[in-house]
Amino acid sequence: MRNCHQEIARWIEPLGAQVQIDAAGNFRALYAAAQPRARRLLIGSHLDTVPNAGAYDGVLGVVLAVALVEGLDGRRLPFGIEVVGFSEEEGVRFGMPFIGSRALVGRFDQELLDLRDVEGISVRKAIETFGLHPEEIAQAELENDALAYVEFHIEQGPVLESLEQPLAAVEAIAGQTRSEFTFIGRANHAGTTPMHLRCDAVAGAAEWIGTVERVATETSGLVATVGKIETRPGATNVIAGEARLSLDVRHRSDKIRADAVENLIRQANEIAARRALLVRQKTVLSQSAVAMDPLLVREIETAIVKTGCKLHRMMSGAGHDAMILAERIPSAMVFLRSPGGISHDPAESVAEDDVEKAIDCGLHLLDQLASSPEFYTRTKRA
Amino acid sequence: MRNCHQEIARWIEPLGAQVQIDAAGNFRALYAAAQPRARRLLIGSHLDTVPNAGAYDGVLGVVLAVALVEGLDGRRLPFGIEVVGFSEEEGVRFGMPFIGSRALVGRFDQELLDLRDVEGISVRKAIETFGLHPEEIAQAELENDALAYVEFHIEQGPVLESLEQPLAAVEAIAGQTRSEFTFIGRANHAGTTPMHLRCDAVAGAAEWIGTVERVATETSGLVATVGKIETRPGATNVIAGEARLSLDVRHRSDKIRADAVENLIRQANEIAARRALLVRQKTVLSQSAVAMDPLLVREIETAIVKTGCKLHRMMSGAGHDAMILAERIPSAMVFLRSPGGISHDPAESVAEDDVEKAIDCGLHLLDQLASSPEFYTRTKRA
Repeated sequence: MRNCHQEIARWIEPLGAQVQIDAAGNFRALYAAAQPRARRLLIGSHLDTVPNAGAYDGVLGVVLAVALVEGLDGRRLPFGIEVVGFSEEEGVRFGMPFIGSRALVGRFDQELLDLRDVEGISVRKAIETFGLHPEEIAQAELENDALAYVEFHIEQGPVLESLEQPLAAVEAIAGQTRSEFTFIGRANHAGTTPMHLRCDAVAGAAEWIGTVERVATETSGLVATVGKIETRPGATNVIAGEARLSLDVRHRSDKIRADAVENLIRQANEIAARRALLVRQKTVLSQSAVAMDPLLVREIETAIVKTGCKLHRMMSGAGHDAMILAERIPSAMVFLRSPGGISHDPAESVAEDDVEKAIDCGLHLLDQLASSPEFYTRTKRA
Repeated sequence: MRNCHQEIARWIEPLGAQVQIDAAGNFRALYAAAQPRARRLLIGSHLDTVPNAGAYDGVLGVVLAVALVEGLDGRRLPFGIEVVGFSEEEGVRFGMPFIGSRALVGRFDQELLDLRDVEGISVRKAIETFGLHPEEIAQAELENDALAYVEFHIEQGPVLESLEQPLAAVEAIAGQTRSEFTFIGRANHAGTTPMHLRCDAVAGAAEWIGTVERVATETSGLVATVGKIETRPGATNVIAGEARLSLDVRHRSDKIRADAVENLIRQANEIAARRALLVRQKTVLSQSAVAMDPLLVREIETAIVKTGCKLHRMMSGAGHDAMILAERIPSAMVFLRSPGGISHDPAESVAEDDVEKAIDCGLHLLDQLASSPEFYTRTKRA
């Protein structure tokens, strides 16, 4: 990460930006405004990704922000541009996503510092080892001069490709429920227990997985996924006494998502009752949908049209730093088409033409905002 | 195991039996016949069991054999009785079941000696550490004086309990197919991939598990079990790109079993094709059904009737040492009712009354065989 910071600094410092690494490990480079005491527009994304990932998740949005500053060709705007490269968006190391962006909205609390990675190293210790000072985290928080946040990111899904569109404005980040369902039956010998005398946790779980798929397919815009199954005892010759499943449900409407989860819990109970199984359900995460700033979304759409692309508004099914920043300042996102919908995989890619269009779109957006005093002087969200 | 051997020796030696531990770690105690050079009837079961097991699997059959010798009250029969306590029936340590009984039928080959446990200790080394001599394994093999093998064992299933019967004669040990099925789809983001653009390996696998249950339920006497599922990458927020399932299919008819497996493979392929998934199937084990010796089965039934119990012939869904011994000598089994059908679990049990009936049955059987010269002088299986 230190090498990564140095490399980006090597690109942006010659453009006239001042680089610092805040105490939460975020890369932050300010390209000053034409006037002192002007406010600042944040543009960026995250610099971490997952293990065995591709080359574009997150970091493309940071490099794109640098390219936009470069595209200004020395021109100064009525607002400064702060290029941000967030740390720890994925939550891989400490099991907690958005660590970097939380610092910017003042949600980096003491408990977060105490989280530990698999080797027992705490966030606090990791920050110190990196050469930063945990006691300075509060200084990473946004001040009143923060105007808005714009994030370019690969879509990480197949929607834009299926529509043959390079770019889209994101109007909302989906709300998400993560649950754990455990079907409990009776472990028994696979050879000696006739079919009609079984309480097979796997068979019950499988029936319910079919229900999950059906409910999601029948509800417009809903996605529901069972991605993880653990069986116990988990032996070829033993009827499973327990099957533990993860459920991930997302929708742009919190109401539709909550109704779907309730429905799936009810159906799990019905299946279990019919099969003499028990079912336990635990909600691990319930996160509301986050709307992007309408004014910014409209400006992004105008900019997209200027690049010659068609308009498409969409929901982000994935969480992003923009979701966290939106708690504090108007935020919006631009999605770039993901070939094959592939992400978090070495095959993750992006088309060079699409990146060119995204830079074009970003420069149009900066020009539009620069000529909209109602934008850069406003003090509240639209 | 050494303590266990010593304890059983302490019981059976005072009854006039000669104990030895063969080079495969089997406990073997010969209670001699009335006449020298008489043949011998083997009675026994295994002394090992699984981790977190109960107190009766296997060892009950050995203790019962000791009780039968005790019940003879010093009487000598026209054939000797060899009480056998087999080693390594379960295959827990070296992943290979029936190690002890294989030695008796001459199937303990050099490759078997090279198998290693999780700590890298080979069968050869384990035998040496126990104080035995691997080069003497061949001496454990049955000689021509071996007449037959009878094994008492808990049913390990719920059939006798559901019929309210204490004992049953086992007429066959089911054939068994173990396979591994892998459904391969495309791992993708659970939030960004709409339902209609997914290739979800878990959803396909779940549909097929429903088929497995339906096919088994609709085929009389068939049992089919998916006991183990592994998903990859196995994360809450990732659509599974791979689901690997175990399949265990058993039936007393090899033809019905083979047809069922073929049907399930076909249906897996149909489900996969419809969902744009791939499916791979690998047969891990295909073991034919083993018939018990008809003459012995009839004698056991006669003995069961003499104890005042009703007749019930059944299949064993589980493998047993009797299946291995049957390759060489006439073999048969008596099942004792398993309360709750529970086995391989600390709650495994057996009713004292049922054990009493089993001893009674065994003594009747010995008397019947002792008064049947056609049994103890025959040289071939019925």
